[in-house]
Amino acid sequence: MFPKNAWYVAATPDEIEGRPLGRRICGEALVFWREADGRVAAVEDFCPHRGAPLSLGRVCDGRLVCGYHGLEMGGDGRTVAMPGQRVRGFPCLKRFAVREHGGYIWVWPGEAAQAENTPLPRLPWVDEPGWAHGGGLYHIACDYRLMIDNLMDLTHETYVHATSIGQPEIDETPCSTRTEGDQVVTSRFMNGIQAPPFWKMAMRANGLDDSATVDRWQICRFLPPSQILIDVGVALAGQGGFDAPAEAKASSVVTDFITPETEISIWYFWGMARRFRSEDAELTASIREGQGRIFAEDREMLERQQLNLQQHPERRLLMLNIDAGGVQARRVIERLVAAEQA
Amino acid sequence: MFPKNAWYVAATPDEIEGRPLGRRICGEALVFWREADGRVAAVEDFCPHRGAPLSLGRVCDGRLVCGYHGLEMGGDGRTVAMPGQRVRGFPCLKRFAVREHGGYIWVWPGEAAQAENTPLPRLPWVDEPGWAHGGGLYHIACDYRLMIDNLMDLTHETYVHATSIGQPEIDETPCSTRTEGDQVVTSRFMNGIQAPPFWKMAMRANGLDDSATVDRWQICRFLPPSQILIDVGVALAGQGGFDAPAEAKASSVVTDFITPETEISIWYFWGMARRFRSEDAELTASIREGQGRIFAEDREMLERQQLNLQQHPERRLLMLNIDAGGVQARRVIERLVAAEQA
Amino acid sequence: MFPKNAWYVAATPDEIEGRPLGRRICGEALVFWREADGRVAAVEDFCPHRGAPLSLGRVCDGRLVCGYHGLEMGGDGRTVAMPGQRVRGFPCLKRFAVREHGGYIWVWPGEAAQAENTPLPRLPWVDEPGWAHGGGLYHIACDYRLMIDNLMDLTHETYVHATSIGQPEIDETPCSTRTEGDQVVTSRFMNGIQAPPFWKMAMRANGLDDSATVDRWQICRFLPPSQILIDVGVALAGQGGFDAPAEAKASSVVTDFITPETEISIWYFWGMARRFRSEDAELTASIREGQGRIFAEDREMLERQQLNLQQHPERRLLMLNIDAGGVQARRVIERLVAAEQA
Repeated sequence: MFPKNAWYVAATPDEIEGRPLGRRICGEALVFWREADGRVAAVEDFCPHRGAPLSLGRVCDGRLVCGYHGLEMGGDGRTVAMPGQRVRGFPCLKRFAVREHGGYIWVWPGEAAQAENTPLPRLPWVDEPGWAHGGGLYHIACDYRLMIDNLMDLTHETYVHATSIGQPEIDETPCSTRTEGDQVVTSRFMNGIQAPPFWKMAMRANGLDDSATVDRWQICRFLPPSQILIDVGVALAGQGGFDAPAEAKASSVVTDFITPETEISIWYFWGMARRFRSEDAELTASIREGQGRIFAEDREMLERQQLNLQQHPERRLLMLNIDAGGVQARRVIERLVAAEQA
Repeated sequence: MFPKNAWYVAATPDEIEGRPLGRRICGEALVFWREADGRVAAVEDFCPHRGAPLSLGRVCDGRLVCGYHGLEMGGDGRTVAMPGQRVRGFPCLKRFAVREHGGYIWVWPGEAAQAENTPLPRLPWVDEPGWAHGGGLYHIACDYRLMIDNLMDLTHETYVHATSIGQPEIDETPCSTRTEGDQVVTSRFMNGIQAPPFWKMAMRANGLDDSATVDRWQICRFLPPSQILIDVGVALAGQGGFDAPAEAKASSVVTDFITPETEISIWYFWGMARRFRSEDAELTASIREGQGRIFAEDREMLERQQLNLQQHPERRLLMLNIDAGGVQARRVIERLVAAEQA
Repeated sequence: MFPKNAWYVAATPDEIEGRPLGRRICGEALVFWREADGRVAAVEDFCPHRGAPLSLGRVCDGRLVCGYHGLEMGGDGRTVAMPGQRVRGFPCLKRFAVREHGGYIWVWPGEAAQAENTPLPRLPWVDEPGWAHGGGLYHIACDYRLMIDNLMDLTHETYVHATSIGQPEIDETPCSTRTEGDQVVTSRFMNGIQAPPFWKMAMRANGLDDSATVDRWQICRFLPPSQILIDVGVALAGQGGFDAPAEAKASSVVTDFITPETEISIWYFWGMARRFRSEDAELTASIREGQGRIFAEDREMLERQQLNLQQHPERRLLMLNIDAGGVQARRVIERLVAAEQA
């Protein structure tokens, strides 16, 4: 169950560099490629001739050429040409609205016409100067809402990520959750603590004494259908926390773009945006590597949780205060899906 | 959907050299072995004692001995003996008609009694002297009719086999298709062209100048239920093409014996028969290797096409002129299946 | 189809050494761990908070701590604590009765309350001094009753284990089967024969001349729901066979504890108990290795037999005299299941 009339991250530009990319999004097999004018196109990954996946073909002069018998597909879903054939009567493929934004290719799995009126999410590194952003992609066999739950309740860091970003103070500090229109925000502020290993590293990278007492924050913001941006950081204690001056803190935005592949699997585009030492490509690579290791720790838990829930579909899960972010995000999703079906 | 009262290639003799072979054919699990008199037998791969696969056993003095408790099975499906048991009342296994022909073991999955009146296909290297034949076996997860389509429309060579036998002239030259009783023949003649890499190699092997202009032909012949023999070759331009004298051409017969394993998987026995340098075993091996590499290129396409079609069973495929061979072959198959069910 | 109100072997103590173990038993996912008082606990492997498998967590001071958000589970299925939460109202997990006995952890998949009145099977190395016992664990994809059949009809040794414990005399010697209450006993006595390779080794290990003529015995005892103990051995011919004095024989008890994982897969705890050289750990290891190799030979046969039977659920299997042990054991099982359902 997911909204179809919504923007999802589909791919990164390097994935369609000089070749088509086949990817299942919200249950449908799509093929993405870059057309001659530089714009990215997406249509069903199904050649109208004999049903071969067009993604096994190649891109020639911006047209997608089927790798089986050479049918040439245009970005509007119409066959442009085929050797020895008149193609005017060929059936059209469904085309999908596509945008490039913030270093990602976004797709609208529903009606392309409706995409025009829906803005893409605002991303700090698009709107403001001085940011660096890096990340990666994981495939995880779970309902996308389990990943939303995961990211809207960071108490799991203490257990799943004990050696990097977890620390007991997360558990001990209550969080608060509020809804702002279709957005849901869960915040936790831990003051006067020692930074955990990942943040000690970031403090050093930022020129701060990593043994200093800090104020730490986590502000998770859910944007429908399934994007989560998390303000995280530490500031020297008493300097204002999240609002402390740049030279007294190490902070960043964890970015989570979650795209359902099927009802029980996702493409998980994770990343981190930061404003300090944003020219330092080596630091970007090292953060990406560390974050990739941390986020891989969630994978087994989520996949096994998914299997457990499938075995016991009748069981009601608890909805504690720490689960409020996920619970409220699900309500937003349900509202959007109900509106689509109405 | 496949005819059951028909001859299919089941195996090659080396596969049953000194041991039984279990193989699923047209949905049924069979076991093949060579009896004491040298004839090949085939029965259900299911021990009447406790259901163990007989193919896990061994062949002793021409009897198939179950590897679990020693039941001895005869080629007629009757239990011959079992240690310490009277076997007269044991239930019989279904036996299948089997023939050896043209270097293959053929099986008749339907009623054995009906097999007597149906001749095996004529194969040039059986009927005439001077031929060499070699080949291999691939397992491919697709409906056998997709492989028939593939072989009855060689325009795919331009795209799937671009670096070996493909060339743009195939696309540019129309083919013609005719039905001869239960056989379907699709022909294409490309005159005054340069030979593609595979045929340049064959010209050299044949003592011809590989830079010469040639006439090239492809004559695909479908024989029900699912055998395809393709006359292919190149002759020095203007020498008569297919009918040119032996010293002016390089030609061969591509042999394709397609056996359904299930509704969505096949055993694909491919090969090539040739009349030039037929004693040259090294050439046979080298052709086999090259052909194996080329035919492996079809596998991913066919398996992915199969998955795509399963996802969209409601979609009608196009039937262009180039598809006529496959379309007419399917009509023959449908007629045979309808006759069986009547 | 299996009795649920019965004792099954679930694990060995080393499998829960310092960490929890998740294991599916009779269709249900359980988690096992050792509590602070040293007793082993088993509850459903499903965290009442969000359904994560508790077996991905860790054991702290005898409590099972969920690896996702830190819920602490007690051995009675009640949540003991969770950071920042009141847990009194949390739903309980089903708990399972557990015992340690004979080097194994046993579980009662049915109603824990009923477990009290059912004794665990008597095992010689528990009741009497001077025994050594070693073994291993295999996962096999078959109905547990196929393994019972296998072990209650040792004529298969001649074929499946031809190079170790098999010999033609097994086939040639009739067995006799009797029922003693809920137990089934199948015996075979082969007198005046040569020992097969495994037993020649055991004779040498026992200080006997391995070329001597021997009397060999196999006494298979089925104890419901699915335990089989087999007295096996050889004695110098004419010394009394099974009843011969210790110095004239090499004997042991093959132990088979078969636990259904699902309807079509098992945990197979195999082993061997012996009374000679019981202090010799190297001999225990070498027997374990040899036995492991022999029992692995059954695996492919049983898994393929299972697949064959699934393909032909309508077929009746033969029930010969050699099958009497399995047939009667199945009757006991059916009686127990019927009693449970009544």
